[in-house]
Amino acid sequence: MLAANAAFYEAFESRDLDRMSEVWEHSDRVSCVHPGWGVLRGWAAVAGSWFALFGGPQHLQFILTNESVAVVGDTGLVTVDENLLDGEEVGGTVTSLNVFVRGDDGRWRLVAHHGSPVAQRT
Amino acid sequence: MLAANAAFYEAFESRDLDRMSEVWEHSDRVSCVHPGWGVLRGWAAVAGSWFALFGGPQHLQFILTNESVAVVGDTGLVTVDENLLDGEEVGGTVTSLNVFVRGDDGRWRLVAHHGSPVAQRT
Repeated sequence: MLAANAAFYEAFESRDLDRMSEVWEHSDRVSCVHPGWGVLRGWAAVAGSWFALFGGPQHLQFILTNESVAVVGDTGLVTVDENLLDGEEVGGTVTSLNVFVRGDDGRWRLVAHHGSPVAQRT
Repeated sequence: MLAANAAFYEAFESRDLDRMSEVWEHSDRVSCVHPGWGVLRGWAAVAGSWFALFGGPQHLQFILTNESVAVVGDTGLVTVDENLLDGEEVGGTVTSLNVFVRGDDGRWRLVAHHGSPVAQRT
C-alpha cells in the first residue's frame, strides 16, 4: 500500500492523468477533498478535478513526511504530511488521509483522499 | 454506521467526553485532523484534543448535510458537511471524512476523522 501511496504522489507531481487514473478505484464510492474544496464524489467528478488541477498554473512539488499506515482487513489508511515546495523553501503543509482498498486482484486502489491545510503556528 | 456517525456528532455538540470516548476505537491506529490542525495519531492524543476542545470557549452547533456512506467490508466511509451555526446563521462549512471499522462485537467504531474548512466562494 505504501507503493500505491507513492504512485499517487508521483502521478500528482508529474501531472500525469493516466497514472492518476490507475491509482484510483473507478467507482461511485470514491471521494476526494482538495485543500479548501468541498467534497467530490464518484470517479467522474474526482477525475475532472485532477484534469482541472493538472491543466492549471500550479505545478506542485512536495516533500512527504510523517507518514503512517494502518491496515484494517482489505482497507488501508495512510496519513501523511505534504510539505509544499515554493522554490527551494517549504511553503506550507497539507495533511492528508488516503484510504486504499485491496481489490480481488490484490492491487490497492485509492477510494478516498482528503487533504487540508495546516495552519501556521505563530 | 449512520447511527455511529450520528453518535459522534451528538457527542461533539454536547461536549460529552464519555460519549465521544465510546464512539472511537481505543487503539494506536486511530487518527484525527481538526480543521487547520496537524494530524493526531493514537487514542491518547485524539482524546486529549477533544478534552481541550470541550474545555475551550467554542460551543459548536452544526447542521449536517450532504451525507454519503460507502461500506467496504468491515470498513465504512462517511463523507458529510458540517454547517456551523453562528447564532441563527450558518457561519461556515467543514467537510469531513469519517472512517469506521466494525469490531468483532458488530459495533462500528471511529478510526479516522478528518475535517477541513471549505473556502467561501466569492
